[in-house]
Amino acid sequence: MRFRERKESVNYLEEVYRRIFPQDTTAREQAVARLEQLTMPHWALGDLMDLAVDLAGMTRTLRPPVDRKKIVVMVGDHGVTDEGVSRYPREVTAQMVRNFVAGGAGINALARQVGAGVVVADVGTAADLGDLARTGTIISRKIGMGTANMAAGPAMSRTHAVLAVEAGIDIAESLAPDTDIFGTGDMGIGNTTPSSAIAAVMSGLDVSLLTGKGTGLDDRQLQHKITVIQRAIEVNQPDPGDPMDVLAKVGGYEIGAIAGLILGAAAHRKPVVVDGFISTAGALIAYGLEPFVRDYIICSHRSVEPGHRFMHERLGARPLLDLNLRLGEGTGAALAMHLVDAAVRILTEVATFSEAGVTGTPSPP
Amino acid sequence: MRFRERKESVNYLEEVYRRIFPQDTTAREQAVARLEQLTMPHWALGDLMDLAVDLAGMTRTLRPPVDRKKIVVMVGDHGVTDEGVSRYPREVTAQMVRNFVAGGAGINALARQVGAGVVVADVGTAADLGDLARTGTIISRKIGMGTANMAAGPAMSRTHAVLAVEAGIDIAESLAPDTDIFGTGDMGIGNTTPSSAIAAVMSGLDVSLLTGKGTGLDDRQLQHKITVIQRAIEVNQPDPGDPMDVLAKVGGYEIGAIAGLILGAAAHRKPVVVDGFISTAGALIAYGLEPFVRDYIICSHRSVEPGHRFMHERLGARPLLDLNLRLGEGTGAALAMHLVDAAVRILTEVATFSEAGVTGTPSPP
Repeated sequence: MRFRERKESVNYLEEVYRRIFPQDTTAREQAVARLEQLTMPHWALGDLMDLAVDLAGMTRTLRPPVDRKKIVVMVGDHGVTDEGVSRYPREVTAQMVRNFVAGGAGINALARQVGAGVVVADVGTAADLGDLARTGTIISRKIGMGTANMAAGPAMSRTHAVLAVEAGIDIAESLAPDTDIFGTGDMGIGNTTPSSAIAAVMSGLDVSLLTGKGTGLDDRQLQHKITVIQRAIEVNQPDPGDPMDVLAKVGGYEIGAIAGLILGAAAHRKPVVVDGFISTAGALIAYGLEPFVRDYIICSHRSVEPGHRFMHERLGARPLLDLNLRLGEGTGAALAMHLVDAAVRILTEVATFSEAGVTGTPSPP
Repeated sequence: MRFRERKESVNYLEEVYRRIFPQDTTAREQAVARLEQLTMPHWALGDLMDLAVDLAGMTRTLRPPVDRKKIVVMVGDHGVTDEGVSRYPREVTAQMVRNFVAGGAGINALARQVGAGVVVADVGTAADLGDLARTGTIISRKIGMGTANMAAGPAMSRTHAVLAVEAGIDIAESLAPDTDIFGTGDMGIGNTTPSSAIAAVMSGLDVSLLTGKGTGLDDRQLQHKITVIQRAIEVNQPDPGDPMDVLAKVGGYEIGAIAGLILGAAAHRKPVVVDGFISTAGALIAYGLEPFVRDYIICSHRSVEPGHRFMHERLGARPLLDLNLRLGEGTGAALAMHLVDAAVRILTEVATFSEAGVTGTPSPP
């Protein structure tokens, strides 16, 4: 399916894919060697030591830079909200953009805590945010005023899907010189619906397994949401082997842009902390487009959405946190960045047995 | 069983227990009311919002102070290492104290990250640490040069058990004026063995369920460790209804001091983040002595030790992190403090619907 994509995206996407390499084996091995000599029982800091090895492998150094953090919140609206799949009205998407800009949202509080900058990018809000775009307060790469209703036809054209991914890549490119580590975030009323649809198409699993109550549906509303997603898949017949087709038919602008951000981060050999359910749908698209991106992805948390664990299984990832979060915005990514910092400190600040004069060779009991 | 204790500890312990009250209901309700108005779907930050409510209830305010953090590493040795239950020689305990003081251990790196002070307290190391005690580099409340071998008789006298708990309380008392939140930590070669023994006695569950490989035993050595713990329980017949008896017979000095630190923190209405397997054994003792301490305990993580989840069940707690850690020292507590800070930021920094002008009343789909 790569063939069709090549024709469309011509050079740009291919050029990005070609810049994505696996983690560096030598740096990984050197990190393991140091971690095994630290003044503690073997691998006693468990998953954080695995993460430290990954960070060394991604950044090709035993002192992975992670100080300059950016969380990019991709924003878009969804035509499928016409089907009544969310409890909140669509105008909340744009209202929340203004809340992000004012610093009053969850992501603002948690990004401040970890010292991450928040970058808001409008890639498809169904509202005029020109005032914020003109002043550079947000990035504007608007592809449309919200997607079309995927229950009645494709959410967007294939061209628009490519544009959404490219917007994400461009944003990563523009931020990369001042960024050590990226975090993904999303805002878009209704966007658990396309995310569940993407998960269902990419995994082949039943929609009902992968669909949850989003921002707070009741059981009847959940059943309706499942039916809407099933209809969208039936109507559009997305091709599971062609991620760009899946994104176009049952995805969203912000999901495509998240996929692009991940691709762009990987092309720059920068770690990218993937937030919750919507961001992981974006990660599935990115992984489908170029499997090597997997080597740069850090999965932040397992959300309340039941489909999230199937997404993580598909990525072969164990998320760092499991705190019953279901907010998005990048909040899980912000929280997980503390663990990224911890992993780096373990690699760079803890003494080895010989440095500390501690008896490192265990004696048999 | 409280009766016997009263006789022994006379006024001091009882006076502390009397100062431990449940969380404040009014502050909890006010926190819930605010969190329900934040610009996000209802309770969308899950466990962090539960934690925010707890912090409000503990500290009786909607702005829980958590900036001044102290992690207290209680240190003691264990006579049961004579039975060959650890892979490391006993002298590592004192060597690690010097590593803590030099700032080269895991806890130093992770405490620095979260801005927590590390306080090291010798309550029973089998080595002379007088040089560090005299300069005030560590706190010395040494009760003995390591416990006796619990496989052959009680680990310590009941008087020493009371002294260990009182040492922990005293340390909490002395630090409380400059501390908003405590973390527990431990160091003591062999100390998973008494911790498993305490868990077995307090829960009535089988020793084999509650015993793990500690710092890295193989299967044969694990079986030996289980046998040693079973023998210790058989020889000593600790009374599950009398936590001080359990601590004396199959506990450790540092475990008693951790219990005391938790009691002291609770008496000051300060949150206490409980580290891993050994610290949670201390929490079980504290909880047995005064059940209201439960209201001040934050369980940081679930360790690799299989008995840990049974301890958490007994405390009715769901730990915040699950990262395959098995180091102790307070490292899990340090990591969880980031989540405590996050909970406070959510409570204090996120705008409400009306503050942000966001449509907060969900419309029916």
